[in-house]
Amino acid sequence: MPTLSVFMDVPMAHKLEGSLLKSYKQDDYPKKMFLAYRVCMTEDGHPWVSPVVSKLRMQIAQDPSLNYEYTPVMGMKSFIQASLELLFGKHSQAIVENRVGGVHTVGDNGAFQLGATFLRTWHHDSQIVYIISLQKELHGLVFQDMGFTVYEYSFWDPKRMCMDPNILISVVKQAPRGSVLAVGNIADCNLTQSQWTKLMCIMKSKQIFPFFDIPNQGFSSGDLNEDSKILRYFVAKGFEFFCSQSLSKNFGIYDEGVGILVVVARSNQHLLCVLSQMMTFAHVLWYNPPTTGARIITSILCNPALQGEWKHSLKMVVENIVLTKEKVKEKLRLLGTPGSWDHITAQKGTHSYLGLNSQQLEYLVKKKHIYIPKNGRINFTSINANNIDYITQSINEAILFTMGL
Amino acid sequence: MPTLSVFMDVPMAHKLEGSLLKSYKQDDYPKKMFLAYRVCMTEDGHPWVSPVVSKLRMQIAQDPSLNYEYTPVMGMKSFIQASLELLFGKHSQAIVENRVGGVHTVGDNGAFQLGATFLRTWHHDSQIVYIISLQKELHGLVFQDMGFTVYEYSFWDPKRMCMDPNILISVVKQAPRGSVLAVGNIADCNLTQSQWTKLMCIMKSKQIFPFFDIPNQGFSSGDLNEDSKILRYFVAKGFEFFCSQSLSKNFGIYDEGVGILVVVARSNQHLLCVLSQMMTFAHVLWYNPPTTGARIITSILCNPALQGEWKHSLKMVVENIVLTKEKVKEKLRLLGTPGSWDHITAQKGTHSYLGLNSQQLEYLVKKKHIYIPKNGRINFTSINANNIDYITQSINEAILFTMGL
Repeated sequence: MPTLSVFMDVPMAHKLEGSLLKSYKQDDYPKKMFLAYRVCMTEDGHPWVSPVVSKLRMQIAQDPSLNYEYTPVMGMKSFIQASLELLFGKHSQAIVENRVGGVHTVGDNGAFQLGATFLRTWHHDSQIVYIISLQKELHGLVFQDMGFTVYEYSFWDPKRMCMDPNILISVVKQAPRGSVLAVGNIADCNLTQSQWTKLMCIMKSKQIFPFFDIPNQGFSSGDLNEDSKILRYFVAKGFEFFCSQSLSKNFGIYDEGVGILVVVARSNQHLLCVLSQMMTFAHVLWYNPPTTGARIITSILCNPALQGEWKHSLKMVVENIVLTKEKVKEKLRLLGTPGSWDHITAQKGTHSYLGLNSQQLEYLVKKKHIYIPKNGRINFTSINANNIDYITQSINEAILFTMGL
Repeated sequence: MPTLSVFMDVPMAHKLEGSLLKSYKQDDYPKKMFLAYRVCMTEDGHPWVSPVVSKLRMQIAQDPSLNYEYTPVMGMKSFIQASLELLFGKHSQAIVENRVGGVHTVGDNGAFQLGATFLRTWHHDSQIVYIISLQKELHGLVFQDMGFTVYEYSFWDPKRMCMDPNILISVVKQAPRGSVLAVGNIADCNLTQSQWTKLMCIMKSKQIFPFFDIPNQGFSSGDLNEDSKILRYFVAKGFEFFCSQSLSKNFGIYDEGVGILVVVARSNQHLLCVLSQMMTFAHVLWYNPPTTGARIITSILCNPALQGEWKHSLKMVVENIVLTKEKVKEKLRLLGTPGSWDHITAQKGTHSYLGLNSQQLEYLVKKKHIYIPKNGRINFTSINANNIDYITQSINEAILFTMGL
């Protein structure tokens, strides 16, 4: 009799994600379209790459002085330095005081993995994490798998069809003392200065630990400083925090996972202790992070002319997003689509809520072959001159159809 | 009063490794040398890169069709396929039967991380791991951190100054039923065919689960098939196992961590279940693996002419290692150094034991500024025409000096 498989008890895993993309790929309809790509797309439907990146790839491949040796566990020092300056500004007081540092990670998942591992071991106050629901699937799982209790919150109010920044304040009010608050893309949060101040006040009194996520600095306003302004405000107010800084999306290096787990501490001494512990975790997690992306980015950031080209390319992307949203709104207005569509232009960034209900979304997917995630948040860079009419007409149809139900 | 730091209880971490390299770097002695590099070195003391890799880097940088988009969680399919064929042979029955698969990982650490995560969840038999002591620091920690009980074993018998393949058999004899046996670089294990057969017999009866490590296929014998022969033997005997396959070292792409966690299962159905579970883990660990290295390697493996160039470069490396070991032995003989030095040429691979005791090693580090790890295992590719005389004379001195103690 043959022996049984060691794996006989292992069932097929539930699909985590990608099933929407899978359905899209299996669809034979010629006009099908997918509006849920994570990456920024170009006008002709390809993943966006900052033009200066392609130039650097060539330069690096031709450089005979590079030896592609193992990087230290901490990662590329020059990359970390340049990225921190991007986040906090060159003349940041915290950088001058040597109390800001980072570990080069395998993308933002790596940064959350490393941060969560650290907090599990050293954050004795609480093992509770509040996370924005958009990030739940990607980063919430990291915390969950490590035994944290994870609660979701969402900025989007589907009834009022707008972002509700007050949600963050009510989350913090109810959170137990010492909880971790994962704040997704702060530049898209829509909080006013006074709302941030109020939030900080409560966070400080309850010792809530912030874990920020900067997935694509520059893609909200087109201005790098503007997009990390709030982070600098937290530093100025004396907060200690972690921040996942990803540079894959805003350079267009998606296949590398170029990330940093940023640490802001009260003093250099605390920072060094935290980083030393993180190195022991990174040693076990991946030993040395991939450097191709980091090398490209460092070369760009350390050269003012190249950095200028890159910044310009970010501005162009954001201008295009703003224009696309305006066009979608205008086309819906011209079609006489019921409802106000101001919420589309009121949201910043590549991804925004369309503000459709589940029946309308189902209509778009099933009848019009337009693939949109269940939360109705689409990638606006996927909309271009070739498909904007089909998309807006379909949205109009979906709304008229479901009104009659 | 200022608030206290969140990190106030975090101490400085103990140094894991790298302190030998650090001491070396801080040493001002002009003739200092470091014989503990993990990577293969060239005659002129640089990390080795297969010449065909540099060529491919250029080609890939110039390719306008590449979009550097996110790879799927599983990684690059073509890379996995080509690497599995390298390991098991193109006409492997297991490949034909679709019961061999893999997940593209962030280097070998990633492969062990993923494998250990899986085993923690699904290997209910036992949470005990036996691991070769050389790998303890790198991979043993991965298991330890996940709560496995980890025992070390070593092939090297310092008294008899030889590799003792029987150690593996005695380890397996005493291991509890269902334990995991991590077997480092099988090509360097020195077991005879009949010893392997005996080992397999015990492993099968005790349901010991093998977790192989193929860190640099081709670097033991210069022949890829020869170096993975034993793995194929395990497949033929109906074993199910995991194998960490790293392609960083044998291509010379050290800064990328190009790895695969290979899974051999009894049937395609079992394989698919295992891979689906692994995808959920990889999703949390790193989401998408870095692809630069994988892309280069796939292009080489899928082109017979380029693959030929690569294989030739491996042969050259191995020929050079064999020659260096012969030279070291001969020089020690000519110096009249006491003892037999046959154990140097009897060992295969880039790294081999010198067979010195702790006093002799201390003498070399402290008096001669030759940096060698405590286990006395050095990287023979670090020895070249410029330093071989100094090294052999120093070894001779160390032995004469400690004989007089």
